[in-house]
Amino acid sequence: MKAEIIAIGSELLTPHRLDTNSLFLTSGLNQMGVRVVHKAVVGDTPEEMLSSFRHAMDRAEVVVCCGGLGPTDDDRTRETVAVVLGRKLRRDEELLASIQERFRRMGRVMAEINARQAMVIEGATVLPNPRGTAPGLWIEAQSHILILLPGVPHELRAIFEAEVKPRLARLGIRDRLFTRDLRIAGLPESEVEQRVSPLYARYPETETTILASPGGIQLHPRLWSDDAASAEAMLDEIVDRMALALGEHLISTRGETLEEVVARVLTENRATIGVAESCTGGMLAERLTSVPGSSAYFLGGVVCYSNELKTTLAGVPPELIESHGAVSSQVALALADGIRRRTGATLGVGITGIAGPTGATPEKPVGLVHIGIADEHGPRERRFQFPGDRDRIRQYATYTALDTVRRHFLLPSRGRA
Amino acid sequence: MKAEIIAIGSELLTPHRLDTNSLFLTSGLNQMGVRVVHKAVVGDTPEEMLSSFRHAMDRAEVVVCCGGLGPTDDDRTRETVAVVLGRKLRRDEELLASIQERFRRMGRVMAEINARQAMVIEGATVLPNPRGTAPGLWIEAQSHILILLPGVPHELRAIFEAEVKPRLARLGIRDRLFTRDLRIAGLPESEVEQRVSPLYARYPETETTILASPGGIQLHPRLWSDDAASAEAMLDEIVDRMALALGEHLISTRGETLEEVVARVLTENRATIGVAESCTGGMLAERLTSVPGSSAYFLGGVVCYSNELKTTLAGVPPELIESHGAVSSQVALALADGIRRRTGATLGVGITGIAGPTGATPEKPVGLVHIGIADEHGPRERRFQFPGDRDRIRQYATYTALDTVRRHFLLPSRGRA
Repeated sequence: MKAEIIAIGSELLTPHRLDTNSLFLTSGLNQMGVRVVHKAVVGDTPEEMLSSFRHAMDRAEVVVCCGGLGPTDDDRTRETVAVVLGRKLRRDEELLASIQERFRRMGRVMAEINARQAMVIEGATVLPNPRGTAPGLWIEAQSHILILLPGVPHELRAIFEAEVKPRLARLGIRDRLFTRDLRIAGLPESEVEQRVSPLYARYPETETTILASPGGIQLHPRLWSDDAASAEAMLDEIVDRMALALGEHLISTRGETLEEVVARVLTENRATIGVAESCTGGMLAERLTSVPGSSAYFLGGVVCYSNELKTTLAGVPPELIESHGAVSSQVALALADGIRRRTGATLGVGITGIAGPTGATPEKPVGLVHIGIADEHGPRERRFQFPGDRDRIRQYATYTALDTVRRHFLLPSRGRA
Repeated sequence: MKAEIIAIGSELLTPHRLDTNSLFLTSGLNQMGVRVVHKAVVGDTPEEMLSSFRHAMDRAEVVVCCGGLGPTDDDRTRETVAVVLGRKLRRDEELLASIQERFRRMGRVMAEINARQAMVIEGATVLPNPRGTAPGLWIEAQSHILILLPGVPHELRAIFEAEVKPRLARLGIRDRLFTRDLRIAGLPESEVEQRVSPLYARYPETETTILASPGGIQLHPRLWSDDAASAEAMLDEIVDRMALALGEHLISTRGETLEEVVARVLTENRATIGVAESCTGGMLAERLTSVPGSSAYFLGGVVCYSNELKTTLAGVPPELIESHGAVSSQVALALADGIRRRTGATLGVGITGIAGPTGATPEKPVGLVHIGIADEHGPRERRFQFPGDRDRIRQYATYTALDTVRRHFLLPSRGRA
């Protein structure tokens, strides 16, 4: 079964706002066996909306429309769909009473304008909105299903989960989407592509999407099937082969983020961590503490921008900075070692580099970053040259530091084995 | 002049990836006087693409298509547009030579498959791609302009700037979009809406988009006009009235972020800053240092998750933590004061709170955050209760701490006036 998603709202046609509801809707529709074949964004003028609805019904059996159900004159979804279907709008007195009741509970009187939200297309089923006044509508007409939802994300999500999913389930669609979420660290997109693309021809039934962000790659192999067991088995086989091709760069086959993987390995190894950052400015500490429960392994960190604070906060000997410069292997080693001692953690990480746009010299260009890691055997260090602007360099450096922590726990166990 | 943007690629119909090129394209088209009236996302099957192109040409004079210009079998934009226009594809030998030359410069031999990228629709102008092998195409046909661009963002941007904009300029469109970018801190979206919405009726020619994120609101009033002087004057008038309605909550009329505003006021006041964070885990330091040149005012920070490190890194007396708890007014005050002394900064900021999901007690619920700020007269502190999950609470707390710094410089000057 095919679906089209139409997002309505002139603000979605500005350079400032994207329709993000469609990601949530696509995930939910796919789970229920419905494929999304087309997405559209239209303004709130009736002729544009009419044209979009008609085209959507040509292309897809299910049309999901978000937005345009509010109380104002700009909210024209109800009227437009009624015209497309040649049906009348009637006021639903029960719905009106429930909207009035909702206002009363908030200690307010319903403005007359909100009565528009009680207008229902003939033959439509009202989908109650537990989080707002605009209800959804479910309409079966002309061998199509039209689903109208409010554009406010948390209202749309609530109605979709409680009202739309059970109705889609009752359609008895046998096809389902099966998928995996692989995360890869430390390889560029082109290298990941080169390693896994020979598998594409081998499994022509599956499609694989590759997603890249500074430092991290995701692979999503996916497969439509009406046979869960064989689909899962095929995906398991693909994941095994991808794992072989990616080696230690594969950090998760279950969609864990790098910080979640780091949290897991730190916890499994009963290790704690302290960090001393210069150019990343707190981003490493922020990523480490973004994981709930991180206080179990993250003890603390310092952001030492000035040379003086590298000494007072992280114990870097001033003569080291003087002789080698703040951005140097020696200072990265001293930051890692120093913060480990100051925090009393099992591991210390130190980062120093040049995020730019200023501060570079011919020998030390923008993007140069030293990352140190220290354990009870002392500190080690690596030098990187990251591409991009300030923000990307900071992201690459943070991601690489997290991956350095993950790899730290790969190596010793291999050594012991 | 109206435009539709079509993004092509089956990965854009998964729950994982959005078409973001359209924001850049919309901004550029608007600057050249072209309004975007519709956006579509389609997979790479020929029938879906054909239907989308035909509908787009019904609706708009300009059709911009991104993606599907690569070398593989999935890249069908050239072929499909040729079918829609009833034109032939021919190989452009000059273009082929330039693609081969590009491979040679990278030390590689062009694979035969890449010769597809030298296929050009009859009558089309080739738009050279300085950053990749897939050139764009500009086609004037049937009183329409079709612009085909590669989907890779930095390639698309380069071609749009160098090749598309000058050609659009030559069309002599008189209409232009005029716009402003107002940033507001410390007010919820509904309150901003309530304060400025009376202006909407007063200026019916303008449309205003409101955008909300945790802690920050943006207002974008915009106006199409062929008379730059009067459009700018009207926008200035609207901005003045909005400024009156928003008071000290308006932080910028030029689209500056809160951290950029904070950077500016710190610099203007020759102030420096040090921060001590608990629940925000480095996010405040990270935001402060995201601004280029921040080393001029940001001295350093500490992330003290454990009670012990609150004492050793930020000088919080242990008995204070023992008697009031780590999340308390007293500890926020001590963090602010302590980090100010440790870093030698003009200002110290301390944050302690419960980001959740664990760590709450009946008296100290998830979302409770204390923010302290200290200057030479001593520390002050405020207690906040933020909504949402761990990530949102950390974002709200960081944003509020930044706004506390901004407001610190508002108050004394008023007092002195």
